[in-house]
Amino acid sequence: MGGEKWVRLVTAQTPTNIAVIKYWGKRDETLILPINDSISVTLDPSHLCTTTTVALSPAFQDDRMWLNKKEISLAGGRFQSCLREIRKRATDVDDKEKGIKIAKEDLQKLHVHIDSYNNFPTAAGLASSASGLACFVFALAKLMNVKEDLGQLSAIARQGSGSACRSLYGGFVKWRMGNNEDGSDSLAVQVADENHWGDLVILIAVVSSRQKETSSTSGMRESVETSLLLKHRAQEIVPKRITQMEEAIKTKDFASFAHLACADSNQFHAVCLDTSPPIFYMNDTSHKIISIVEKWNRAEGTPQVAYTFDAGPNAVLIARDRKVASELLKRLLFYFPPGADVELDSYLIGDKSILNDAGIKDLKDVELLPPPVGDISNQQYGGDVSYFICTKPGRGPVVLGDESEALLCPLTGLPK
Amino acid sequence: MGGEKWVRLVTAQTPTNIAVIKYWGKRDETLILPINDSISVTLDPSHLCTTTTVALSPAFQDDRMWLNKKEISLAGGRFQSCLREIRKRATDVDDKEKGIKIAKEDLQKLHVHIDSYNNFPTAAGLASSASGLACFVFALAKLMNVKEDLGQLSAIARQGSGSACRSLYGGFVKWRMGNNEDGSDSLAVQVADENHWGDLVILIAVVSSRQKETSSTSGMRESVETSLLLKHRAQEIVPKRITQMEEAIKTKDFASFAHLACADSNQFHAVCLDTSPPIFYMNDTSHKIISIVEKWNRAEGTPQVAYTFDAGPNAVLIARDRKVASELLKRLLFYFPPGADVELDSYLIGDKSILNDAGIKDLKDVELLPPPVGDISNQQYGGDVSYFICTKPGRGPVVLGDESEALLCPLTGLPK
Repeated sequence: MGGEKWVRLVTAQTPTNIAVIKYWGKRDETLILPINDSISVTLDPSHLCTTTTVALSPAFQDDRMWLNKKEISLAGGRFQSCLREIRKRATDVDDKEKGIKIAKEDLQKLHVHIDSYNNFPTAAGLASSASGLACFVFALAKLMNVKEDLGQLSAIARQGSGSACRSLYGGFVKWRMGNNEDGSDSLAVQVADENHWGDLVILIAVVSSRQKETSSTSGMRESVETSLLLKHRAQEIVPKRITQMEEAIKTKDFASFAHLACADSNQFHAVCLDTSPPIFYMNDTSHKIISIVEKWNRAEGTPQVAYTFDAGPNAVLIARDRKVASELLKRLLFYFPPGADVELDSYLIGDKSILNDAGIKDLKDVELLPPPVGDISNQQYGGDVSYFICTKPGRGPVVLGDESEALLCPLTGLPK
Repeated sequence: MGGEKWVRLVTAQTPTNIAVIKYWGKRDETLILPINDSISVTLDPSHLCTTTTVALSPAFQDDRMWLNKKEISLAGGRFQSCLREIRKRATDVDDKEKGIKIAKEDLQKLHVHIDSYNNFPTAAGLASSASGLACFVFALAKLMNVKEDLGQLSAIARQGSGSACRSLYGGFVKWRMGNNEDGSDSLAVQVADENHWGDLVILIAVVSSRQKETSSTSGMRESVETSLLLKHRAQEIVPKRITQMEEAIKTKDFASFAHLACADSNQFHAVCLDTSPPIFYMNDTSHKIISIVEKWNRAEGTPQVAYTFDAGPNAVLIARDRKVASELLKRLLFYFPPGADVELDSYLIGDKSILNDAGIKDLKDVELLPPPVGDISNQQYGGDVSYFICTKPGRGPVVLGDESEALLCPLTGLPK
């Protein structure tokens, strides 16, 4: 070390996740300890993920961070907590390939550069903080040769953003609220991996919104302070649902899975409404999507599609299989055709092959879609959805070995 | 009696009411017994009321009813329950003025004609069934010389439409859920009369809706069957709120009144959302109105306006006094100017003198309204509100003595 010129880089990719049993309410604001367990589905990182390159070099003057090409402040308590916890657990690095040796004492003193990039719009309410903080922790842990397992890393990521802890695993993940005051047992465990229930297809409707949203951090604080229903939910209702949801996932019981996911999403939004002042995350478009799914499920006699909404109006729709997903897409495109000047190619992103399954090649095919059977009004809402993403349950974090994928320059440690 | 040609008429007028602690959920569907107490404000019948003329004649062949000039069926169980309960309690009529004597046994056999008219749009979600059934029962009771007091009549009206029982009194009214299995103690009592809190001004925004609504009868049945939060609300939360609301009304404590009314409206809608499938009564316009009121109340440091929403998107806004009401009207007219081709005269109905207080003479004045202080976006939503009604707390049912106000012809007993 000392006056040397080396830069050590690690690049990692981490998925985002969507809760199907919701986390809403903290019992400890600093450690980010929740008032109930939650369960999520990890989304395929090929469509929604954060890529983060972290770097160490004796040449760095400060800890610095860039997000989506813009430098941002690392001063926030949440970044600092994660950074401190990772540095605490650093062990000697011996990178034979690059010939770099760093003692753990030095790791604690060296500055880091962090460059992070989401392959999806950050502001669209798609849990960018979950994948972002998970990737931050995972990449730094690899950089500093931290030996803790994923569960222990999840407890660190939790201190950056609660739901980030669930992004440390692929497939289906439970965040155990834990009992310890220091939060050491509030961490994620995998319920089933991403190959367990390969049939599921996920369609996300990114909904145009005219209203500013309450951040989930302040929203859940206000719910804890003012909702008289939240405590009852957390103590009496969620524990049973967690057990039922784990069972539904393990036995691939789609009817139970859908019933629980929809009911829990609605109850989370009910608690938001019971908050003073009330919080509205869903809008008329969200309501319309729910009513489309509910009507269809009822007509079929058994659930075909589950819906869940986080702290925003976007719908995350989970179809029981690909056939249902292509039918779902046709229905959604009928009700929500793209607005003027929107190309099909940018209106459905992610796994575009679902368009073939649905027999849709271009916008003409969208215009020719027939109204769903049983709908009388056939009212359409062009422009109310910004775009759709088709994806599926996906894998957990990985290290990207190829230096060409790094966001920081291996010579300077600055953004490429 | 016998072959005589007489027609006995009674005409009554009954107000509608808006709950400030909500009724949602029945413990008995037939008797209409609720799972919790509720409290309402009776609205001034000069602006919102039902007028009903009931008639008896030996010449009538059948029980018949007209609503808003159209004949409707009386076969429904709810009308029949009320009619049966009133007939049961009939006492001898001795109308000296008209020279008509009817023995109670004959009253039970004679057919009735009923003609009912709402001075406001029936389908607008303005509790027309509350004033309608209350007027039905009140007028029939007078017609058949029923001696029971208003409380006992309210228990009969309750069997027609739950919330109708609260329309038997003016001012502020509590519906006691009662304990008896036969429902005999599930009735309305007056908390305070309409002169007790003369400062309050009520502004109703009738909101345009693009979605069909779930009827409150089926909605509350589904909530009882599926919402895990409703029972907790009814048993643990509402009883405390009832006590607090009675106290707030008695002491004219507007801050408590507003806090309780808003929280309870939101909680009722939260329970609707927690129902499977979820019920959405409020829409984006309702949400926008709530956010306007919440922001203003917070900026003032103490509540100026309370809001409450029933089973529909319409906002009922209760201003602490006339000055606040005129300010409220200006804000609402800024955000929700009338749609194209709508005249001011039909856009604000009821007590139009509030327009003078607000300094608004014509549509030009509406266009010149400045954006409320502190609003940055200043987005406007022309056409999202159909019209406004300005009113105030009002009196209970009355008999209209003047035969010229009767809806049925005094000679034929048929609609005029």
